[in-house]
Amino acid sequence: MTSERVTHITKKSENISKWYTDVILQAELADYAPIKGCMVIRPYGYALWESIQTFLDKLIKQRGVKNAYFPLFIPESYLKKEKEHVQGFAPQVAMVTEAGGEKLDEKLVVRPTSETIMYNMYKLWTHSWRGLPVLMNQWCNIVRWEKRTYLFMRTSEFLWQEGHCAHATHEESLAMVRWAMDAYKKTYQELMAIYGIVGTKSVAERFAGGDKTITYEIMTPDGKALQGCTSHDLGQNFSKAFNWTVLDKKGEKLYPWQNSWGFSTRSIGALILAHGDDRGLMFPPAIAPVQIVIVPIFKSETKNNVRTYAREVAKYISKFRVEYDEREGETAGFKFNKWELKGVPIRVEIGQKEMEQKTATIVQRDTGEKQTIALSELTKTIGAILHNMQKTLLAKHKQFTELHTHTVDSYDEFKKIMKTERGFIRAFWCENPECERAIKQETKATTRCLPLNAIKEKGVCVHCGNPAIHRWLFAQAY
Amino acid sequence: MTSERVTHITKKSENISKWYTDVILQAELADYAPIKGCMVIRPYGYALWESIQTFLDKLIKQRGVKNAYFPLFIPESYLKKEKEHVQGFAPQVAMVTEAGGEKLDEKLVVRPTSETIMYNMYKLWTHSWRGLPVLMNQWCNIVRWEKRTYLFMRTSEFLWQEGHCAHATHEESLAMVRWAMDAYKKTYQELMAIYGIVGTKSVAERFAGGDKTITYEIMTPDGKALQGCTSHDLGQNFSKAFNWTVLDKKGEKLYPWQNSWGFSTRSIGALILAHGDDRGLMFPPAIAPVQIVIVPIFKSETKNNVRTYAREVAKYISKFRVEYDEREGETAGFKFNKWELKGVPIRVEIGQKEMEQKTATIVQRDTGEKQTIALSELTKTIGAILHNMQKTLLAKHKQFTELHTHTVDSYDEFKKIMKTERGFIRAFWCENPECERAIKQETKATTRCLPLNAIKEKGVCVHCGNPAIHRWLFAQAY
Repeated sequence: MTSERVTHITKKSENISKWYTDVILQAELADYAPIKGCMVIRPYGYALWESIQTFLDKLIKQRGVKNAYFPLFIPESYLKKEKEHVQGFAPQVAMVTEAGGEKLDEKLVVRPTSETIMYNMYKLWTHSWRGLPVLMNQWCNIVRWEKRTYLFMRTSEFLWQEGHCAHATHEESLAMVRWAMDAYKKTYQELMAIYGIVGTKSVAERFAGGDKTITYEIMTPDGKALQGCTSHDLGQNFSKAFNWTVLDKKGEKLYPWQNSWGFSTRSIGALILAHGDDRGLMFPPAIAPVQIVIVPIFKSETKNNVRTYAREVAKYISKFRVEYDEREGETAGFKFNKWELKGVPIRVEIGQKEMEQKTATIVQRDTGEKQTIALSELTKTIGAILHNMQKTLLAKHKQFTELHTHTVDSYDEFKKIMKTERGFIRAFWCENPECERAIKQETKATTRCLPLNAIKEKGVCVHCGNPAIHRWLFAQAY
Repeated sequence: MTSERVTHITKKSENISKWYTDVILQAELADYAPIKGCMVIRPYGYALWESIQTFLDKLIKQRGVKNAYFPLFIPESYLKKEKEHVQGFAPQVAMVTEAGGEKLDEKLVVRPTSETIMYNMYKLWTHSWRGLPVLMNQWCNIVRWEKRTYLFMRTSEFLWQEGHCAHATHEESLAMVRWAMDAYKKTYQELMAIYGIVGTKSVAERFAGGDKTITYEIMTPDGKALQGCTSHDLGQNFSKAFNWTVLDKKGEKLYPWQNSWGFSTRSIGALILAHGDDRGLMFPPAIAPVQIVIVPIFKSETKNNVRTYAREVAKYISKFRVEYDEREGETAGFKFNKWELKGVPIRVEIGQKEMEQKTATIVQRDTGEKQTIALSELTKTIGAILHNMQKTLLAKHKQFTELHTHTVDSYDEFKKIMKTERGFIRAFWCENPECERAIKQETKATTRCLPLNAIKEKGVCVHCGNPAIHRWLFAQAY
């Protein structure tokens, strides 16, 4: 099944949010569902999620974390056990109040995150230090109610993985928080070719119920910041809320130290934004559902021979993810546009000349570069192009991010940048939530994070002038 | 993380349903959740589901079916579009009535199956024969409300895949219905070593809203029948209910022919029942999360050397799924019992003798057979044992099924068998739903299916004596 028609898409350079929606719908990545805030992930979009799952799940398993599955429904009373947690999530939950034809005694929350249901079970299962660490993850759907859908970015239901671990010491738990962010960074950079800044969230921006949140902040083409994923140090907050203790080696009671970390389908939104252009999507080869499309070009008298050769070529390079487009009723030019829109890294054109010379003409999606290669060299050449394209796309996104990151010491300049070109701003902040709120109100920019590699300096807050020791990263949230 | 304590399990030969629950809880496959009818799938149980997903997803993709993801929530009005469909599922649905702090205008059904939400989208996407066939599948969670949990077998929420395809002709659709059942049969037999009878459901037992249901009926050790999975010919019922037409090659309107097919975590219940014994679980090697456990046996003075050698052995056979159990505070005997309970196909014992002779002692979970093998031969020998064990377990289950399948022509005999030893009964049935109901009421046995390989014969209904042309398969449902 392929699209029945490719129509016009808005230029990315003209209106990025319109382009974003156009390209998702036209490339058949996703569509709106007939439920408020919900979307359907179509096969071409879901294949991206499958690539992410394969890549990340392997890293998770290598770390000794095991997959499990906890219920979709959480008793309302559980969500309420951790005070900040319920305050953070209550406004967004969907509630099941009837089931099996009866009104329920207690409302059930459709999970907005699974801390409370999981930790309740951890408590039942683990009573001694021998049972620690608990290292679990689940791949599942999550519901946080939204009034309006913004495809992939903001939807009432989304897919993610959520890792939830419990440890005997805070140190061990913190190591896990960092490990998870390293795995996410690897996924973003090596699979998705997306650069980002890793850092710690401010108190106002951190996870509801946690002590510390680490984030991966991604710059979008319009100079905004997209929170790519997060990893949370939960301290002992939840073990205390659930009154979960285990006996340590000395036989004394210990509240386990917990962490949680999640990576969601929102990342696909970042992927789309980071690499596309006016002609459509541009997927990095490592994650591209189709790495190479083969388009035969023929007149009616050469049709059979050209097609036979094109199929041979397809077999020849079958170690890559290849799609051979033999669809009738579409011109070659139409197909070129279609697959460019769909972001396929390499197009292979097979015509009479290629057939006669035993060659293939390849065109790169990123540069438009075109070359004709002997069949015997094809696998090697394509392999090298894909490898380089992957590296180049990451390098470009890194360069773009750095080019639009400003080190600013004057609040006037801060305001001016946020009004015009936007981007990331590195500025001293006193860490007072009042200043943070004021800056947000006046510039729409929020603290994105304190980068992990930030050095301690002597400075003054860009807003209030009080002493500050770190340059935080500011940007408008996507 | 492993269990903190292994306690007593009921003997399978004494009380199979008590054994079933004991073994699931003790082996840490799953646990009860604090929500009516819900369960938690623990890592050791979830690994089984991951094996099934890997095996079946590959078959699904080979057939050209692509994965997608549709919303968890279905507007109540959608479910109502197909009359029989809503009657079948309405009593079991869970309803979201509040979300984002507000009462919803229309109640949302938590999907009990996704026909209605998916076909609504198919209609929006596909308007011509060029868009057919639609070949889609999703792996997701499903909710059908249950008052009481029976772990894996009957739970308010379960996991499954649901394939949903649409075709230009009934023939093509029927081919897909059969293909799906072939893929399921392969999964049950080659991965799970579970024999079953493939056949067509009676009108009363088929899918609500479909024209025909094919099933895989599995015999449990107590002679009952477990419906392993189903594949449905939906005819044009849903395309008509949704008024979905596409233009065919002649430009005329065509209602697409649809089918759906599902395989769920219920299959894990069948797996547990089919192979275990009084000592616990017994997993076929192909699906076993751990294929080999290595247990070191030492005195304090040999501890270090034996453990070093055991770790070497583990590396040596790392092409298998190996667990090396170095856990402190448990005797070797305790570990033997623990891993037998957990159904690991092969135990490797490493003691001083093995260390000195560069050998390993291996014990089979199914036969208890014990042999000492030179390290150089170990991989080959283990490979052969696992291969044979897989085949033997399937053969045994097939033999058991055949041994407890009775060809019966007298209703007295029918009743007697169902009162005593149970099993499957092959008996003529007139295909009148009245007789079916009466038989169920009097014997608790239902029609399980008309086996695909049933031959047309001249007979009389075992209940009413009217003419009948086929022997149907009867059994008590698990």
